[in-house]
Amino acid sequence: MKKLINAVEDVLSESLEGFALAHADLVRVAHEPTFVVRRDAPVAGKVALISGGGSGHEPLHAGFVGAGMLDAACPGQVFTSPTPDQVLAAAEAVAGDRGVLLIVKNYSGDVMNFEMAAEMLPGASATVLTNDDVAVEGSTYTTGRRGVAGTVIVEKIVGAAAEAGADLDTLKALGERVNRATGSMGVALTSCTVPAVGRPTFDLGADEIELGVGIHGEPGRERVRLAPADALAEQMIAAICASIEPRAGEPVLLHVNGFGGTPLMELYLMVRSAARQCADRGLTIARLLVGNFTTSLDMAGCSLTLTRLDDELIRFWDAPVHTSALRWGR
Amino acid sequence: MKKLINAVEDVLSESLEGFALAHADLVRVAHEPTFVVRRDAPVAGKVALISGGGSGHEPLHAGFVGAGMLDAACPGQVFTSPTPDQVLAAAEAVAGDRGVLLIVKNYSGDVMNFEMAAEMLPGASATVLTNDDVAVEGSTYTTGRRGVAGTVIVEKIVGAAAEAGADLDTLKALGERVNRATGSMGVALTSCTVPAVGRPTFDLGADEIELGVGIHGEPGRERVRLAPADALAEQMIAAICASIEPRAGEPVLLHVNGFGGTPLMELYLMVRSAARQCADRGLTIARLLVGNFTTSLDMAGCSLTLTRLDDELIRFWDAPVHTSALRWGR
Repeated sequence: MKKLINAVEDVLSESLEGFALAHADLVRVAHEPTFVVRRDAPVAGKVALISGGGSGHEPLHAGFVGAGMLDAACPGQVFTSPTPDQVLAAAEAVAGDRGVLLIVKNYSGDVMNFEMAAEMLPGASATVLTNDDVAVEGSTYTTGRRGVAGTVIVEKIVGAAAEAGADLDTLKALGERVNRATGSMGVALTSCTVPAVGRPTFDLGADEIELGVGIHGEPGRERVRLAPADALAEQMIAAICASIEPRAGEPVLLHVNGFGGTPLMELYLMVRSAARQCADRGLTIARLLVGNFTTSLDMAGCSLTLTRLDDELIRFWDAPVHTSALRWGR
Repeated sequence: MKKLINAVEDVLSESLEGFALAHADLVRVAHEPTFVVRRDAPVAGKVALISGGGSGHEPLHAGFVGAGMLDAACPGQVFTSPTPDQVLAAAEAVAGDRGVLLIVKNYSGDVMNFEMAAEMLPGASATVLTNDDVAVEGSTYTTGRRGVAGTVIVEKIVGAAAEAGADLDTLKALGERVNRATGSMGVALTSCTVPAVGRPTFDLGADEIELGVGIHGEPGRERVRLAPADALAEQMIAAICASIEPRAGEPVLLHVNGFGGTPLMELYLMVRSAARQCADRGLTIARLLVGNFTTSLDMAGCSLTLTRLDDELIRFWDAPVHTSALRWGR
């Protein structure tokens, strides 16, 4: 294993120390229990949004803490759920009098620990579960579909609505609506290597890829021979559309997400391939996001995500956001 | 070779097609000859800034085209200099009556082709050569020091000054001053693989790294055994400081740059390691930039860059920038 680290047990804390230094203008990082909050937390008059999950998916979720998106993120150890006390401590730091919305990716450990925290929260709370991965039903870490890169879309749109003053029930309904309108599918060209394990999570032959891979390297639909980008995009967009069933002419958001080991040049090439598939289906790409947002350590590969949009969702997508990983508007 | 591509000969054009789709609000991409310009080019009343070089370093340079930074970028094929006609066509698209400044990384092919273009340009022009890589004097592709990640710092600061109305001579002097104040050094954990070659550029043993590597996988200072992040940062910051000689107490910009195959989690960890080295030397990190900005295809590893700052440079660094890869301010 070759990584830019010191001792394996210090990877998360040392990485967060660097994150805090790099973005001191945006966030504050607390340790024991570990969480990341907006510099200006608690923000009066808004529902507090908290997400989190295992580390190794950076910038998800800490990179989305800031104005217009999350109030707090709770990073667990690599590919390990955060504990309920992390969520409780984060909630204490960010909650005002309008309640707390938890945005949780559908993995059994995350669901259980966020649920335990929710039961102990003193004020009102609600949870949005994301499960946008159309590849498989049930997987290594979860029952039902996995929550993957579409979580970023949910967090951005719900974050904008929270900033605009929406109440807890409205935000929960909005988050669930965005999740239903969103489908994702990934492909891995290589495995990732978890620092504490020290060897690749899975083995792939020199010309093999894992189609439908999960963001922890979980098995996907099938292991196949490497195919051209256009052919991969065709299969992934077909699977996504079979799930979210966009109408011809409908505006969609296309998100091409890198897994951490794939250069931007290839991600842009996949934008072209995916856009052609959308055009073939009569879909209008109204918004486009490309880059490494929901990663899997050093895994090479990418995921494609589509979200069916309408005027309200586009307005929330376009609203200003000021985080370390997404930044636009005033 | 496993990459998200179609035919090898179409990698650049198809990637740029995706780039144009993803950032249609910011840029326009021209083909044959190939260049990328600001959507609003030519911008009246300012010196036009043009950079470029071989592809495979994305987001450098096309990702820095936009308000407050470059007016145009000329991407060559992967690790191959752009041709003079690309530079000429870009200049025709962006030049106003205040001249053209070319920002060129010090590689023999780039220097020659930009020089040929400069000789044919109808109006006034000047060139800033960047050579911030302190690792080696002379290398595979060049005589003298290589231009690497510090080029982004030069482009940002000179871009802000150009936007503020500075004239050609002032910008050239400013760019050369920033270049002199800047030093970088890289370390590779793996090789990169050029699509048209199909195999790794160099071989590294399972526990070997290349200290001082160039951004095309050129040899560095020495091939050594993998060391902890803190030890790597110590050697790199020492080499940089021996070159740029910052005074104790002086404000510096620290740039931790990923080479494309290294996850953000490790880059943040390197921020911590590098920051400690700066603190040990009494340096004040006044500004910090972390992410994949000057990449080497899928190479794993990173570079560290320091720039000695003063109030003027900080003001230009903080000025608004609106490009696909760097974005802040209004």
